[in-house]
Amino acid sequence: MPTRRRLLVLLFALSVIDLAAAQPSTDPLQSWNDGAVKKSITDFVSRVTTEGAPDFVPVAERIATFDNDGTLWSEQPAYFQAAFAIDRVKAMAPQHPEWKKQQPFKALLDGDMKALAASGQRGMLQIVAAAHSGMTTDEFSKSVVEWISTARHPRFGRPYTQLVYQPMLELLAYLRANGFKTFVVSGGGVEFMRPWMEKVYGIPPEQVIGSSGVVKFEMGADGKPALRKTSKIEFVDDNQGKPVGINRFIGRRPIFAFGNSDGDLQMLQWTAAGKGARFMGIVHHTDAEREYAYDRQSKVGKLDKALNEGTAKGWTVVDMKQDWKTVFP
Amino acid sequence: MPTRRRLLVLLFALSVIDLAAAQPSTDPLQSWNDGAVKKSITDFVSRVTTEGAPDFVPVAERIATFDNDGTLWSEQPAYFQAAFAIDRVKAMAPQHPEWKKQQPFKALLDGDMKALAASGQRGMLQIVAAAHSGMTTDEFSKSVVEWISTARHPRFGRPYTQLVYQPMLELLAYLRANGFKTFVVSGGGVEFMRPWMEKVYGIPPEQVIGSSGVVKFEMGADGKPALRKTSKIEFVDDNQGKPVGINRFIGRRPIFAFGNSDGDLQMLQWTAAGKGARFMGIVHHTDAEREYAYDRQSKVGKLDKALNEGTAKGWTVVDMKQDWKTVFP
Repeated sequence: MPTRRRLLVLLFALSVIDLAAAQPSTDPLQSWNDGAVKKSITDFVSRVTTEGAPDFVPVAERIATFDNDGTLWSEQPAYFQAAFAIDRVKAMAPQHPEWKKQQPFKALLDGDMKALAASGQRGMLQIVAAAHSGMTTDEFSKSVVEWISTARHPRFGRPYTQLVYQPMLELLAYLRANGFKTFVVSGGGVEFMRPWMEKVYGIPPEQVIGSSGVVKFEMGADGKPALRKTSKIEFVDDNQGKPVGINRFIGRRPIFAFGNSDGDLQMLQWTAAGKGARFMGIVHHTDAEREYAYDRQSKVGKLDKALNEGTAKGWTVVDMKQDWKTVFP
Repeated sequence: MPTRRRLLVLLFALSVIDLAAAQPSTDPLQSWNDGAVKKSITDFVSRVTTEGAPDFVPVAERIATFDNDGTLWSEQPAYFQAAFAIDRVKAMAPQHPEWKKQQPFKALLDGDMKALAASGQRGMLQIVAAAHSGMTTDEFSKSVVEWISTARHPRFGRPYTQLVYQPMLELLAYLRANGFKTFVVSGGGVEFMRPWMEKVYGIPPEQVIGSSGVVKFEMGADGKPALRKTSKIEFVDDNQGKPVGINRFIGRRPIFAFGNSDGDLQMLQWTAAGKGARFMGIVHHTDAEREYAYDRQSKVGKLDKALNEGTAKGWTVVDMKQDWKTVFP
């Protein structure tokens, strides 16, 4: 065989080997173990994206909504936004002596995470609203970017944005590759989430829906307008608030929704009640070793009614321990 | 020449003629007369889309917001949503005898358009809220679709969706072709606009921001959830409400904004106050023959302060009569 030809054969052989080696990574959901859960996802996507098939859904209507805390990133030992609020409220505490006697501020300043968790999501929204009132939206956004790039999780010692779930990142990308528009619909503060979600999840600010405080437009003496955050809670995007928020911000019903707690139940019910093919998913935290194990008794991310309803109705319930090959990136 | 070859030559010649004939339509803003206004648009788009240029803006940040009434479609002799409300309130009037004595319902039932206009946008929002309370969001959406396909404008005798501005349709498409994401930010009711804007403007429901009433989630006895519209006004997306709504729904500042009335002033100011290249546009209604001529004295779409500020600051002020070759499609 002439040298040149041998070289070509060799190159061809190498490229075949390369292809073979690369094969596993062509699975867009490679961090999901094979099984009924993974299959329920790929089957659904195949049904709604196959033109001419009875369940085909046009691209414009492929709306997918995801809860954030406990669904896209961790939420233990307390919602990460609470850690952000702790850092900010501590810094502001000298100007607010009344907080020493007032819950949930007292719990927060005492570092009593258990009492803080007991105050629930609404308690934390109070902290968030109080801690951040008086700032402009631009100032607040900057403080979030600063915090998220420096703060570390108490157990894992990693930045919070590295405690996102690798399988869910793959799911988001997989859905988008199949023409879905992905939204976050979270009980968390919308202005806490927007500054980093585009980079971390590939979800732009205008596709992030969350709880919010009243914001006021004001014209400065210098003729420069500003939007200032007040301490008044405007909207709690949790429980019934989730379908209400979806209606308000998206204006169409999702065909795909993923949550992990009872706060997501109404979003899942609202999704399920639409016509045509629907996908409802729940992340069940069953992995104390790699992440956390909690459900019916948890103060944070309680999963009880939604687990019953999801099981009874055949929704997809992810067993984190069984179904996820990898948890974090 | 063999027959087949002659045929090919003929086909080629015809296609060249076709191309030549099609040439003028390659101007994406063909309904805009050449001049300073048109040039201000194309210059701006060129500045922010030229990679490496000092004013370059990444695609994700190319947010463009448009008022609707008087900016994308007509708003005289009264906001078109008022016509919709008239039709619905008339149908509901027998069940509401109190409306006969109560403004703005009295004006509406008497067909007194002048008194109706005098009640202002807030008055009309009251009508809209009252007329539509009790329905589910799905039922309401259906009634809008039905009305918009059958109702006719009193002067032009056309469906309202044909009273959109051809130059603005071209502008929306031109911006999108240049990587912009186009949003409607209107004082009109969000659930009145969403059912038809995707078809008419190419703007999907999730990019339509407007005024809204409180919506409640309820679980039916049959286990079917519904979202029901209440008569309580939740958000008025006008004046200061526009930048507040932009912050709430989009979460980033537009680089391009277009309005036509004082209700758009704060949106334009908010857009102007951002860093980098900005475009602020105002449609000035100067064409009584083809459409309407009104500004400082008008009850609907009053343009006074914004005209002063726009002129003083060198914003783009469209003189409808001079700058638009065509008004309606």
